[in-house]
Amino acid sequence: MSESENKRLLDHIDYPEDLRKIPANQLEQVCAEVRQYIIDVLSENPGHLGASLGTVELTVALHYVFNTPEDRIVWDVGHQAYGHKILTGRRKQFNTLRTLNGISGFPNPKESEYDSFVAGHASNSISAALGMSVASALKKEDRQVIAVIGDGAMTGGLAYEGLNNASANPNNLLIILNDNDMAIDHSVGGLSQYLVDITTSQTYNKMRYDVYRGLKKIRLISEDNRGSILRFNNSLKALLTQQHNLFEGFSIRYFGPVDGHDVNYLVKVLNDIRNMRGPKLLHIKTRKGKGFKPAEESATEWHAPGKFNKETGKRIIPDDLNQPQLYQDVFGHTLVELAEQDERIVGITPAMPTGCSMTYLMKAFPNRAFDVGIAEGHAVTYSAGLAKEGLFPFCNVYSSFMQRAYDQIIHDVALQKLPMVLCLDRGGLVGEDGATHHGVFDLAYLRPVPELVISSPLNEHDLRNLMYTGYKTAEAPFVIRYPRGKGEKTDWRNPMEILPVGKGKKLREGTGLALLSLGSIGNEAVKAIEMVSAEGISVAHYDMIYLKPLDEELLHEVGKTYKKVITLENGVITGGLGSTVLEFMADHGYTPRVKRLGVPDAFIEHGTIPQLYKLCGMDAESIANCIRELVRG
Amino acid sequence: MSESENKRLLDHIDYPEDLRKIPANQLEQVCAEVRQYIIDVLSENPGHLGASLGTVELTVALHYVFNTPEDRIVWDVGHQAYGHKILTGRRKQFNTLRTLNGISGFPNPKESEYDSFVAGHASNSISAALGMSVASALKKEDRQVIAVIGDGAMTGGLAYEGLNNASANPNNLLIILNDNDMAIDHSVGGLSQYLVDITTSQTYNKMRYDVYRGLKKIRLISEDNRGSILRFNNSLKALLTQQHNLFEGFSIRYFGPVDGHDVNYLVKVLNDIRNMRGPKLLHIKTRKGKGFKPAEESATEWHAPGKFNKETGKRIIPDDLNQPQLYQDVFGHTLVELAEQDERIVGITPAMPTGCSMTYLMKAFPNRAFDVGIAEGHAVTYSAGLAKEGLFPFCNVYSSFMQRAYDQIIHDVALQKLPMVLCLDRGGLVGEDGATHHGVFDLAYLRPVPELVISSPLNEHDLRNLMYTGYKTAEAPFVIRYPRGKGEKTDWRNPMEILPVGKGKKLREGTGLALLSLGSIGNEAVKAIEMVSAEGISVAHYDMIYLKPLDEELLHEVGKTYKKVITLENGVITGGLGSTVLEFMADHGYTPRVKRLGVPDAFIEHGTIPQLYKLCGMDAESIANCIRELVRG
Repeated sequence: MSESENKRLLDHIDYPEDLRKIPANQLEQVCAEVRQYIIDVLSENPGHLGASLGTVELTVALHYVFNTPEDRIVWDVGHQAYGHKILTGRRKQFNTLRTLNGISGFPNPKESEYDSFVAGHASNSISAALGMSVASALKKEDRQVIAVIGDGAMTGGLAYEGLNNASANPNNLLIILNDNDMAIDHSVGGLSQYLVDITTSQTYNKMRYDVYRGLKKIRLISEDNRGSILRFNNSLKALLTQQHNLFEGFSIRYFGPVDGHDVNYLVKVLNDIRNMRGPKLLHIKTRKGKGFKPAEESATEWHAPGKFNKETGKRIIPDDLNQPQLYQDVFGHTLVELAEQDERIVGITPAMPTGCSMTYLMKAFPNRAFDVGIAEGHAVTYSAGLAKEGLFPFCNVYSSFMQRAYDQIIHDVALQKLPMVLCLDRGGLVGEDGATHHGVFDLAYLRPVPELVISSPLNEHDLRNLMYTGYKTAEAPFVIRYPRGKGEKTDWRNPMEILPVGKGKKLREGTGLALLSLGSIGNEAVKAIEMVSAEGISVAHYDMIYLKPLDEELLHEVGKTYKKVITLENGVITGGLGSTVLEFMADHGYTPRVKRLGVPDAFIEHGTIPQLYKLCGMDAESIANCIRELVRG
Repeated sequence: MSESENKRLLDHIDYPEDLRKIPANQLEQVCAEVRQYIIDVLSENPGHLGASLGTVELTVALHYVFNTPEDRIVWDVGHQAYGHKILTGRRKQFNTLRTLNGISGFPNPKESEYDSFVAGHASNSISAALGMSVASALKKEDRQVIAVIGDGAMTGGLAYEGLNNASANPNNLLIILNDNDMAIDHSVGGLSQYLVDITTSQTYNKMRYDVYRGLKKIRLISEDNRGSILRFNNSLKALLTQQHNLFEGFSIRYFGPVDGHDVNYLVKVLNDIRNMRGPKLLHIKTRKGKGFKPAEESATEWHAPGKFNKETGKRIIPDDLNQPQLYQDVFGHTLVELAEQDERIVGITPAMPTGCSMTYLMKAFPNRAFDVGIAEGHAVTYSAGLAKEGLFPFCNVYSSFMQRAYDQIIHDVALQKLPMVLCLDRGGLVGEDGATHHGVFDLAYLRPVPELVISSPLNEHDLRNLMYTGYKTAEAPFVIRYPRGKGEKTDWRNPMEILPVGKGKKLREGTGLALLSLGSIGNEAVKAIEMVSAEGISVAHYDMIYLKPLDEELLHEVGKTYKKVITLENGVITGGLGSTVLEFMADHGYTPRVKRLGVPDAFIEHGTIPQLYKLCGMDAESIANCIRELVRG
């Protein structure tokens, strides 16, 4: 360890209890060190930079003021929690972030008692923290529960359902709204620092209490209903400040906005409000990427920048000339290509335009591309409304987030058989983001829904073909599910053609067994079949393309011809392609031996995609072994 | 037709165009006739009385002012749309409501072009109508789209996601908030009629416009951003009225509250605001059951009262002495029984305490029972928060509504393996409520989720036993799925015992084939086996009890012993019990012939449960036929 490092305060902070021993006037230094440490480590080990740089002061202030882990911090979407990990026993493992067997990129209760709740999907913090806070109140524990939620996550319906319930039962929940971009409620944006001062000051609160007591005494208000008292308080505040805002409509006391980068002031405000009873919300303003200039200036680019040079502030972008494009870019460019031909085509995405590359459509046709914020359910039902009036929506949602819109797919789309394309991006294992983000359930949860067409392309050409087919046939909701990352081809821009709905393709003739794959994982099968072919094993390979409707002709051929069948899918094997094939064979009296390859019935942690494929027995080598065993067995 | 009926205006109103020919001073009479007709028909043909009586004036006013079906009305939850059905070509079929091949209890686009969108699950109207309105704007059509949403549905996160997006793109959406109980935003409740008058008056709007033009001229505001103008307008209104409310925080112009039973005033207000550009909300106050005294006085009881005497106002309650209890009541009483033994037990339900009988817990332990409103996602994540802090939640959600909480089950519950009981009430076909309400997907969508225990009781005794088992074992999230309606036994209060997790029961020995059933549909199998037994066919019957984990010992026995197997479940056969059994047999090299009985891959319409069982081949007679075919085939 070098001399300069020895002087770091951070080296003596393993846990929050160490932090709490530090005098308040050194907290700014701690923040600077945490920030530098995040930059140092992430420059070499890619992760989510911007959000965590923005919450350094908040993180330090929270652990300084509250008695964690007895008091609970519930982070909403873990991107912002790197500082929290560093200060809660994981400083030394921080460079294993998001690697196989290393620490997770999100708060994870399995990893640390300081991680109070899972935080991979946005907007869950208020509901979870409210439950925890009400439980503490019922158990008569003196525990503080704090939900930290970004302004983006606040657009999710789940957050609203939480807010709407926050005052229904006794609790001391503190919600911290980490506002790093735009305000949600613009009237809130008009409130001044003055409001913070008046609402957090002892004088004001004492006066409020005195007036309340007085009115109660003369029986102008009763205590029958806790809610009415809160509303009374808020009305009084509104009267005093001539202001009123969204949160107080929910009977939640509002404080803010305050500068989220002034650690000393944060400590003061948190100390002021921590012992107030009832639900309350503190609105802080922060800046994504704070303290690292390039990230401050270009928040989207530096959200998760990959490796970078921390001195020059330049991202280290791998040379990918002559490399295949991302599936995402193929989607984005193809959508524009189709939209140029038909003005009925529109694009919808819930807060992931950059991730799914709908940015291209936004640029080309700004009034035909809709980013609806973190609101998957709305994205789907809104698309259904657009489709009902004759537009043709391409609604793009990450597979694991589409779980939030399951009912909307069934009730608002499939039941009315509305023609549209539902793109499930990041289908299958996604790698470093881990268990919360793997899009492995989609095939199994969508297959039982009547009226859906469900497809998955082998490569970029077929992604384009399926987008074209879904749009051209336009008879039913058309699901296209494709993975995160690079495709197979450098010449991705093929002339688009229709892939007949419910028809698969035979990719290779063979005699020993039949391998049926769905989606781009089929490319691992291609490699595996190549391997065993050198050993004289002959495998027929079918690319199903469609999970629904099933290619019955193809399956009759397989049923009649082969005694041994392997199914391969990049998703859970409970209920997916393999089960479908088994159902077909049973229904038609075929009895081949069927081996199902795919993701087992367990939550899969983080790692690189090749590592996880291997773990699940879905890489070429494992598939080859499975073929050998089945042929010889 | 009698003479008095001949004088009815209603007899000459087949479609809204007929209504629009009636002079305004006769609208009150039309309302009275519609109301009486609803009461007349529903007294004989049970349906949802209260909500539809409350919206008679609104329905008449909407069809009078707007040019339906060119203008679109999107009803949120169809309970309120009976008047709408009567006025839009379905007056004469109204007495076939909710019967097999009769008209649906909810708006249904397959049934009428006046039904703009499906409306079985709450809170979807704003998102759907917004999509329709934006589509019309993009297509430059001069179309009005109106969403009618109740204050209950407004608590759903999907409604909020819609509100939050309502001002993002050009549209003329009109949201009508039908407030028949409590206000959502209580500050709204403080607004007076004066606000309506000032905001709908031409003078006020002209002044607002003039001021806006003036400020723009002197460049104090710019038109770069439409949102900022709306906010400006709202600020001006706030300034004038010293009021501000939740909806205007979303840049939606707010009008109200107005008396929703004054049809003439409604017509006036709707005419005033119909041509205002941009999204707007009209808040009306109505009374559930309006015009039928018993229903006005006891809204919950008369929500869906069954048959009643319209003269005496007495409900006709069938004599069910010595009849089995409802599964719902068994759940409700048993929950109280368990809660008496352990104070960690709490109950959570999203707006269905009466339907699922959590009312008993609410009465016994009011601070341990939580009705969170129409907010299924929150109900589950909130339960997860309660469980995380050591309480033991019983979270009860109707099966088809649990589709709204799918991600919350995966991400917030299963991933953390939090011990709790998730009760899926109304699992399987539900009868008269039809396609939107059948709880037939749950087994298929829950089975792929790791860590869940999934169970379904054969009868009320096992419901109690499973509730006890889930609570006592407390190792994982424990799903109990049971049907709507009456159980099998009059002596339902058995001493509770643990049903070992992952263990089924052999109900009957047999040699010809094995029938494996899950849940109460197994009672149909019992009858079927009895029938064929008289013909000398011997069938072994296994009650699986658990879908997950599977009883492998039982299945090995079946695989080894039987060449023919029938699986039976009250849910979709794509991915449910039958698929599970096929997967097991394939994995272990058994090759019995397996016939899967259950709900086919299609949306099933409304009818009585016995009718629908027959339709799906799940009634005793159909099962017996299947057994005969399989044994003889």
